[in-house]
Amino acid sequence: MNDAHHAERPLANGQARIDFQTEPARYRHWKLKVDGDVATLLMDVDEKGALFEGYELKLNSYDLGVDIELADAIERLRFEHPQVRVLVLRSGKPRVFCAGANIRMLAGASHAHKVNFCKFTNETRNGIEDLSENSGLQTICAINGTAAGGGYELALAADHIMLVDDGSSSVALPELPLLAVLPGTGGLTRVSDKRKVRRDLADVFCTIEEGVKGKRAVEWRLVDEVTPGSKFEDIISARAKEFAAKSRRNGPVQGIKLAPITRRFTDGGVEYSSLAVDFDRKTRIATITLRGPTVPPPASAGAMVAAGSEFWPLKLARELDDAILHIRLNEFEVAAIVFKSSGDPAEVVAYEQFLDANKDYWLTREIRHLWKRVLKRVDLTSRSLVTLIEPGSCFAGTLAELPFACDRSYMLIGTHQGDNRPPAAIVLTDANFGAYPMSNGLTRLASRFLADPADIDAAKAERGKMLDGEAARRLGLVTFALDDIDWDDEVRLFLEERASFSPDSLTGLEANLRFAGPETMESKIFARLTAWQNWIFQRPNAIGEDGALKRYGTGQQPVFDMRRV
Amino acid sequence: MNDAHHAERPLANGQARIDFQTEPARYRHWKLKVDGDVATLLMDVDEKGALFEGYELKLNSYDLGVDIELADAIERLRFEHPQVRVLVLRSGKPRVFCAGANIRMLAGASHAHKVNFCKFTNETRNGIEDLSENSGLQTICAINGTAAGGGYELALAADHIMLVDDGSSSVALPELPLLAVLPGTGGLTRVSDKRKVRRDLADVFCTIEEGVKGKRAVEWRLVDEVTPGSKFEDIISARAKEFAAKSRRNGPVQGIKLAPITRRFTDGGVEYSSLAVDFDRKTRIATITLRGPTVPPPASAGAMVAAGSEFWPLKLARELDDAILHIRLNEFEVAAIVFKSSGDPAEVVAYEQFLDANKDYWLTREIRHLWKRVLKRVDLTSRSLVTLIEPGSCFAGTLAELPFACDRSYMLIGTHQGDNRPPAAIVLTDANFGAYPMSNGLTRLASRFLADPADIDAAKAERGKMLDGEAARRLGLVTFALDDIDWDDEVRLFLEERASFSPDSLTGLEANLRFAGPETMESKIFARLTAWQNWIFQRPNAIGEDGALKRYGTGQQPVFDMRRV
Repeated sequence: MNDAHHAERPLANGQARIDFQTEPARYRHWKLKVDGDVATLLMDVDEKGALFEGYELKLNSYDLGVDIELADAIERLRFEHPQVRVLVLRSGKPRVFCAGANIRMLAGASHAHKVNFCKFTNETRNGIEDLSENSGLQTICAINGTAAGGGYELALAADHIMLVDDGSSSVALPELPLLAVLPGTGGLTRVSDKRKVRRDLADVFCTIEEGVKGKRAVEWRLVDEVTPGSKFEDIISARAKEFAAKSRRNGPVQGIKLAPITRRFTDGGVEYSSLAVDFDRKTRIATITLRGPTVPPPASAGAMVAAGSEFWPLKLARELDDAILHIRLNEFEVAAIVFKSSGDPAEVVAYEQFLDANKDYWLTREIRHLWKRVLKRVDLTSRSLVTLIEPGSCFAGTLAELPFACDRSYMLIGTHQGDNRPPAAIVLTDANFGAYPMSNGLTRLASRFLADPADIDAAKAERGKMLDGEAARRLGLVTFALDDIDWDDEVRLFLEERASFSPDSLTGLEANLRFAGPETMESKIFARLTAWQNWIFQRPNAIGEDGALKRYGTGQQPVFDMRRV
Repeated sequence: MNDAHHAERPLANGQARIDFQTEPARYRHWKLKVDGDVATLLMDVDEKGALFEGYELKLNSYDLGVDIELADAIERLRFEHPQVRVLVLRSGKPRVFCAGANIRMLAGASHAHKVNFCKFTNETRNGIEDLSENSGLQTICAINGTAAGGGYELALAADHIMLVDDGSSSVALPELPLLAVLPGTGGLTRVSDKRKVRRDLADVFCTIEEGVKGKRAVEWRLVDEVTPGSKFEDIISARAKEFAAKSRRNGPVQGIKLAPITRRFTDGGVEYSSLAVDFDRKTRIATITLRGPTVPPPASAGAMVAAGSEFWPLKLARELDDAILHIRLNEFEVAAIVFKSSGDPAEVVAYEQFLDANKDYWLTREIRHLWKRVLKRVDLTSRSLVTLIEPGSCFAGTLAELPFACDRSYMLIGTHQGDNRPPAAIVLTDANFGAYPMSNGLTRLASRFLADPADIDAAKAERGKMLDGEAARRLGLVTFALDDIDWDDEVRLFLEERASFSPDSLTGLEANLRFAGPETMESKIFARLTAWQNWIFQRPNAIGEDGALKRYGTGQQPVFDMRRV
């Protein structure tokens, strides 16, 4: 099989890597305006601001670079603008809301980039929904012009979709007829499961290039209201007021500033202030070592606000998120991520206690929700995940979610010879029993102990205790507990073997085994829809030289193998 | 992209097509023995009995031909042996239970055959579980030797798995380490969601070639009990007695005989006794026309038994099932299946009333469950599905499920010019409101009306009425209701357009839009797991010339692209 689709385009402006850090002053594609309790996010994509060389971002089409700014804006609304109750999403361009993912970008991207790009854009849209559901900040999407493909999928993340009724403004999912692929950012699932569009009407909608406009868009449940162009601004203002009045968000006028993350890239890894990433290129392993807090928790919620983004749980979550994204999009050869930690479990527990004591405070809630999203990002990372729990580590509370997020965990019984740090311990806290649901809606321990919920109760009864290797194994919290004699060989053999397997089959295996139990719209998007899209992204009808993605815009019709699978 | 993987091997013995009809006297691979309320199904695969040329079925490995016999045996247990309460599944070969799907077959099969083969084997295993859940016939799987890959997946369909503890008998899912693919017949989902194996232990289990044996297999929940070899037969008998005593199946000693289906293959289609399949090769459309009953329903349950497999609802279900399978596996070029019907809706309703009046009778229940499975087979068929509802048709009750199973339906308002048959009507009956759940656990109408359950009630209130095109459209039962002037053009344009789209993207679209709402283990198998497996079956790491599937057994190691997607 020819596998030419792996070659990656060069990044624009000679950048060495895709950078997930930005801030509003540096945005090229979005304008974030905050006015009292209403924020407006204006999409005005800079055609010349593409992430890679070789294409322009016409008609408010987007690539990963555009979505990184959107994700940043959503995070800042959470932390920097806790008073905002409504977000209005709209376009800064005339006659077009958003044309979706840039087709030239897709046609030229490697399969791995396409898949990880879609994963990130899905996570960003889930984040918009999470902001509404859990923080009460509701989104109104005001469409004046065409919202096609990813443009409509962005709208689908909103709580309320408005469409101008001017005979040309429309919503559309034209991927199938135009490009022979599926809407890649949750569109089909949100049409069927969120907006509950009747399945045969959804079939019609997804097979017409020109989309649906006017009253029919309301009748088919594709949008919530249509408005005359002349009343558009007035109705947007009215809706913003209504939704603001209904919102339960009641943060202070002043949030905290999300300061730039401190990090340094070297040949061997990335050094952050609260964690380190080390690459072993030969064994294709990335080791992420999280560091426990170096100071005790603040004395009060006010002191936490004063610490701002230096507050250890917030800083670590942001840095871990950045590290995971860096590995996902810049380090495709990494076979496995090994999580380690260093620090005093008691100090981590002290932070858990502080967060619990202030659990209704707006900033505490946002920090817990951020960790929830970062841990979901870990769950959804298509690399083998393993936690090594050794002397001197601090897998307590929130950090103890990492071994439960991993495909396997290894814990040392006792100490390594010549190492006088205290033996490894896991400490469970309340945080492990509800704060961090996975995308299937269950906690990681509930997903782990599906067979017998009594195992959850047994673990719960041990909260606060320093659980050594034997105890953790007995409770089912770790896969293997080994003594020093076996440790090095067992871990090395496992990692070598893992790195020798086909990455594709591991991706499929892990995507199935990590999410047992119930399904949610979110889990359906990442499992069912994504898997079908990945399959289609491998099929010659889409990506072959004569396929629809390659021939789009050339004036040549694509050539399809017409056999059904 | 090189797409050499489409070439199909020739069928063995010069057969013209894959035939889904068989009977116990013709089985080459299984022996079905019935002794009172216990049946034994002995797997003893004939190495020389492969479906295609070019491989032998060593070590009780299987291909589609083997599974067609298994599916037939399960159907016969339902209809011919209603007294059977327990099925014991075991091997007729020493030291091996079943080695799973034949690897040489997989390595040489077209992608379309592989995918449809896996779909059929999945449906057969779901049928075994349905037999237990809905007819009370429980399955014990008695493993003496190795149950690897599809062999263990077959065991996973049973209610109780026994394993001999002899130091070598084992269960294994070695697909990933050996072949760089996933277990293709529900294995991962049943391990995680049915047997609820802890996810990290499942990860270990699925990455070790040699599998798990003895007590560990019980501790990890992979089997229900291990027994010494010396006591194997005694314990099988004891378990069969226990399960028979617990079974609620209480059919008569005498069932009905499933007579061979009457059908005639021609160049243009297949003629059955109660339906016809017509192929239009140019437009790539298969039209299935179902015929209503020609005689009124029998006077009593006894008369229904006397009619046996000639009883119209049973005959039609079996013939429709055969027709769908024929199209799936022998007619890959068919883009769309068009359902039509001919007959008197009132006569169909009379049969529905007869079935309802006898709804607790064993044969009636089996017929309803058969229709449920056949309709699920329709739902899961990877072709565009459309129903055309025209004058002279009889889409009533059970047959009215077809438009609801389809991606779209078109209904004529009034009559065609010069046609004096009565205008088209849909008639809803109780059967449309509970008898036929889809794999997501909902009825087709409930899936259709997810947005507003009041729409289900509105439809329910119209039961028994002849609903014309206007009424059916108003109730949301059809996609389009057209008059004679528009009919031909609209239908033709739709079918032409559908046939012009990339088949792959349609497969993905339909797989997503057909199953809105909740998920079940069954729907997870057909969506999540199958989609990932299909993706992996397209990846060079598995199917490329240097991939694991091609190199298996050659002594050469596969070569993998190590980039993670």
